[in-house]
Amino acid sequence: MQKVKIGIVGLGRLGMKHAENLAFYINGSELVAACSIAEHELVAAKENLGVENCYDSFDEMLKNEEVEAVVIASTSSQHCEQIKTALDAGKHVFSEKPLGIDVDQCRIAEKAVEEHPEKVFMLGFMRRYDPSYVYAKDKVDNGHVGTPYLFKGTGMDPISCIEGALEYAGGSGGIFIDLGIHDIDLFRWFLGEDPIEVYALGSSYAFPKFSEVGDAEAGCAIYKFASGKIAMMHCARAAVHGYHIETEIIGTEGSVRVSPVPQKNLAMLFNSSGAVTECVETFPERFAESYRLELQEFVDCVQQGRKPHVVVQDGTKSTQIALATKEAFESGKTVKIDYDK
Amino acid sequence: MQKVKIGIVGLGRLGMKHAENLAFYINGSELVAACSIAEHELVAAKENLGVENCYDSFDEMLKNEEVEAVVIASTSSQHCEQIKTALDAGKHVFSEKPLGIDVDQCRIAEKAVEEHPEKVFMLGFMRRYDPSYVYAKDKVDNGHVGTPYLFKGTGMDPISCIEGALEYAGGSGGIFIDLGIHDIDLFRWFLGEDPIEVYALGSSYAFPKFSEVGDAEAGCAIYKFASGKIAMMHCARAAVHGYHIETEIIGTEGSVRVSPVPQKNLAMLFNSSGAVTECVETFPERFAESYRLELQEFVDCVQQGRKPHVVVQDGTKSTQIALATKEAFESGKTVKIDYDK
Amino acid sequence: MQKVKIGIVGLGRLGMKHAENLAFYINGSELVAACSIAEHELVAAKENLGVENCYDSFDEMLKNEEVEAVVIASTSSQHCEQIKTALDAGKHVFSEKPLGIDVDQCRIAEKAVEEHPEKVFMLGFMRRYDPSYVYAKDKVDNGHVGTPYLFKGTGMDPISCIEGALEYAGGSGGIFIDLGIHDIDLFRWFLGEDPIEVYALGSSYAFPKFSEVGDAEAGCAIYKFASGKIAMMHCARAAVHGYHIETEIIGTEGSVRVSPVPQKNLAMLFNSSGAVTECVETFPERFAESYRLELQEFVDCVQQGRKPHVVVQDGTKSTQIALATKEAFESGKTVKIDYDK
Amino acid sequence: MQKVKIGIVGLGRLGMKHAENLAFYINGSELVAACSIAEHELVAAKENLGVENCYDSFDEMLKNEEVEAVVIASTSSQHCEQIKTALDAGKHVFSEKPLGIDVDQCRIAEKAVEEHPEKVFMLGFMRRYDPSYVYAKDKVDNGHVGTPYLFKGTGMDPISCIEGALEYAGGSGGIFIDLGIHDIDLFRWFLGEDPIEVYALGSSYAFPKFSEVGDAEAGCAIYKFASGKIAMMHCARAAVHGYHIETEIIGTEGSVRVSPVPQKNLAMLFNSSGAVTECVETFPERFAESYRLELQEFVDCVQQGRKPHVVVQDGTKSTQIALATKEAFESGKTVKIDYDK
Repeated sequence: MQKVKIGIVGLGRLGMKHAENLAFYINGSELVAACSIAEHELVAAKENLGVENCYDSFDEMLKNEEVEAVVIASTSSQHCEQIKTALDAGKHVFSEKPLGIDVDQCRIAEKAVEEHPEKVFMLGFMRRYDPSYVYAKDKVDNGHVGTPYLFKGTGMDPISCIEGALEYAGGSGGIFIDLGIHDIDLFRWFLGEDPIEVYALGSSYAFPKFSEVGDAEAGCAIYKFASGKIAMMHCARAAVHGYHIETEIIGTEGSVRVSPVPQKNLAMLFNSSGAVTECVETFPERFAESYRLELQEFVDCVQQGRKPHVVVQDGTKSTQIALATKEAFESGKTVKIDYDK
Repeated sequence: MQKVKIGIVGLGRLGMKHAENLAFYINGSELVAACSIAEHELVAAKENLGVENCYDSFDEMLKNEEVEAVVIASTSSQHCEQIKTALDAGKHVFSEKPLGIDVDQCRIAEKAVEEHPEKVFMLGFMRRYDPSYVYAKDKVDNGHVGTPYLFKGTGMDPISCIEGALEYAGGSGGIFIDLGIHDIDLFRWFLGEDPIEVYALGSSYAFPKFSEVGDAEAGCAIYKFASGKIAMMHCARAAVHGYHIETEIIGTEGSVRVSPVPQKNLAMLFNSSGAVTECVETFPERFAESYRLELQEFVDCVQQGRKPHVVVQDGTKSTQIALATKEAFESGKTVKIDYDK
Repeated sequence: MQKVKIGIVGLGRLGMKHAENLAFYINGSELVAACSIAEHELVAAKENLGVENCYDSFDEMLKNEEVEAVVIASTSSQHCEQIKTALDAGKHVFSEKPLGIDVDQCRIAEKAVEEHPEKVFMLGFMRRYDPSYVYAKDKVDNGHVGTPYLFKGTGMDPISCIEGALEYAGGSGGIFIDLGIHDIDLFRWFLGEDPIEVYALGSSYAFPKFSEVGDAEAGCAIYKFASGKIAMMHCARAAVHGYHIETEIIGTEGSVRVSPVPQKNLAMLFNSSGAVTECVETFPERFAESYRLELQEFVDCVQQGRKPHVVVQDGTKSTQIALATKEAFESGKTVKIDYDK
Repeated sequence: MQKVKIGIVGLGRLGMKHAENLAFYINGSELVAACSIAEHELVAAKENLGVENCYDSFDEMLKNEEVEAVVIASTSSQHCEQIKTALDAGKHVFSEKPLGIDVDQCRIAEKAVEEHPEKVFMLGFMRRYDPSYVYAKDKVDNGHVGTPYLFKGTGMDPISCIEGALEYAGGSGGIFIDLGIHDIDLFRWFLGEDPIEVYALGSSYAFPKFSEVGDAEAGCAIYKFASGKIAMMHCARAAVHGYHIETEIIGTEGSVRVSPVPQKNLAMLFNSSGAVTECVETFPERFAESYRLELQEFVDCVQQGRKPHVVVQDGTKSTQIALATKEAFESGKTVKIDYDK
């Protein structure tokens, strides 16, 4: 089968990781083009990944007819517009999360996807491709926990990334969008239902700057579902032990918990501190395999004419929920979530 | 040193456990009297524990001058009145939780305790005496987690107790009082602060009867603190894997988690299911040592003229918080917690 | 039921622990006498435990007719002789392990036990009373692991005790007797069979003194059973993380493993080291409950006229196996184990 | 950089996995040829992996000048001869373990490697490329466990593979070669020293056929090192819980343990059995990443003109140790290991 010729836009930390996977580790993928406004990133893509066509303009890249599919790893605020132009240019599209930073943007992307039903569109909720989450979902779907009624999610960024977080404080959209979006996608996926109301709390504890810009260093949110189901979420920016992503789905006949200890690997040390398990340090480390598997799924879908199970509306709804969470946090009040806006 | 002569009121499941400890396993304790309205319980106390003085009237037991201290393990609604009459009769008092089922009752107990400053009064928040919780508190107090900012508590009763729970559904005070009181006490203890607002959700999932009587089979609550700290709690009545009590305190420099797996003991099985850790089945199993240690502390306090660190106001406040939680659950709205009522 | 009046001989670290349990925490026990050659220990027993009759001569204590049962926690080399004199004096006897330090001694104890069939004799293999080991044994006996064919035991003393170990190096009988005796008892118990051959290795790694006196700082032994079963054992004197006792029984249909992490309690810390479980520091900490439960069993047996399941021959055979292990280690050759010597 | 053109010989279970990795998931690799005596395997390689040149003769494949490097995944008994002919034909060589099934064969391979110093030769001890083992080795090498003095290895094949094991019983070389070779390589790697003596035991417990053909269903071996270090190993063919590979390196200042629970992934289930961790089922599942990483290292070495850290003598010595272990098992006696044979 012929390889899918791919162009990528955005070569930051995650973008470069995607590019590397597309160039070397994805069956059926050929990375033929890259676009970035940072020239050194293009040089790196050319030299290290052998990318032949480099662009500083996304539109120019889209004009390259060899490019069949586009991977969007640019700034969040650009996603939706780029999705539309790429689809309109006849390309398959994989976009990083979040779909958009407001609902109007999301609607643009939704419309574009609807207008190009023959094209593959996929959203980068990579956790859905992590083998442990796939396993957990399979257990839930096959009744091993009975009826799932409660989702508990923890997402703590490591303190090693605090400088970047402080630098972008105020511009990130806030913790409930920036970090929360993943758990929001997960609880929709696991509970199979959209929440109708949210209440949220948050503050700063070690890094007052987050509060100063109206954001929180850590926050919690609780979601009400029409059926009576519940979701609880804890997001934080500065875990000293590493990158801590933990999820539990509790049901009437059991529970499944993913990575209660964010173990770096299968090794345990015994030393004067006791029994010690080192933890993963960053999201690329924790989700290395997921990032590869989601792109493999994208390429497989293109090759096989299939559609991924994540649809564009998943992006819109998770954004709507994240925005409502932010509103609840800012207002100190419960907020009804309106999906028709 | 002379033994403390103790009378117990209430010989139900937990009362009988206390009686057994007082009779056999507490240094400095002598169980000399017991009171119950169930004659077979008194017979058991006499035959198995050698209790010499049996009563069906609490007032009669209090008249026994040999009795220096009273352990109250009767129905929750009787605690406060019995605390008052026992203190007024010149006895030291240990009372099971909750202090009372409404604030007026609690105030009666508070007043009685204040009027008898020379008497030991202790409230049975046994988790505070569990070695793992003592260890966790010590870590928190000694700065090992930095500033604690978030408490996460899980309290799931085992499905093996569901029949009793269904039988008393409607009469238990509700899940947020019945089960929640322990986590409420814990977060006050760990965070060192009282919450100012609560929001709560709950429903029934496998056992609709709880909803029918206005209670919930499982519920979650989130608490706001003036300092920005947060507490989250999950209570449930029917965990299939056993009695699951799990607690985490997250701070700016670390976290401490107690019993993420409610392991029955230190053994792990490897069988066709995989690696299996059996779980504790009930609260007497999980907290066997705590029940002994809290009574040992009570007896030690009496002998040494010390006061326990749990004070009567801990009982009032935890009841106030539990009642506010119930109100939040019933109203579907956030509720401010008023401690001056 | 009347309390069993007990005298104890030996008030060292473990002896004093036993005395405290007998005085305060064992149902049916009354500690009425104590014997030690260290006067300060007797003073402590009198003052802290309220022991009324103190002796510096074991024979004198035996003359006290009030004493019905004797707990022997003296030096290993005295056990057998004291067992005999106590039984001959009409007392029930609990003796600490090992039964004796040579087979001739053991035979003296065996004979005494046989001559007093109406008396309870019990040997202090406390691990058999640890709830996790009881659970594991129950699983094995009820077929949950199929036919058990392999025993793996680890017994590492903590480095915190190294000074004492170095001081007594050369006088302890050697690591395979001193530490190994417990695992030897365990594999006999779990596999239900006595080994026929042993091969052993050992050396010193951080503390050369052990090798200088002909002992080992750490050693391993492997045991052959006539049926084809196997036991492997690892003993060490200086684990930096604490007191590490770990046991696994592997069978044809599963395995059961006890305390792979010698956790201090149920708490886990998350800090800059990762996820940390502190470990138990010493044997009194790890086996606190076992020490109480084995004495409770002894007292129950006396009161109920039952015999414990550990018999005197268990003591002789474990000593024979330990001595054969020592011989294998010293000779560098496999050694057949002769139980008829 | 130009891709390395690779031919593979042997397309059984592991060979096909290697082929798939070489075709799709290894940076710098191009799978251009395959050799097998099973035509359906060649058809599969052509259809699924796009291999253009298929051979039923290894010599014919070697004549293909396009082929720069050869991956040998044929029957163990063919490895050494194929290594020699491939190196003589000017190819780089990666060979699966074991190097050879007797020492004479190994010497042929050693000689061939020595005669072609400009060629890359690598042996497939994939565990050395598993991230958890790499981490453990790094900890040991950087002094985190002090001086490593004891290696404990467990290697249990899953019962799901028992039929194949029974079918090839008698032809596998025996459990200590077939399964043991990996642990033998590991203890040489971790302890940095070769053992001088071995003692081994083994038998059959559920599957008598292994004993009937002179092999064992499960076996244990203990190794003596000149420095006093020790290695212990347990191999078994029929673990009901899955594929259990566990390793511990104990040192004077700590220990490191790899995969005490052979967890399938990061998820834990809570159900009526308790807290359950499902286990990996097979070696391709457990070592999927290692198989990829070892071939990536091979390709990187070829491209960069480097040599892998596993040398041909590692293959010879591990075979010598495995053969001595087998001799010890068969004779029931300790066996000195002679590396000069």
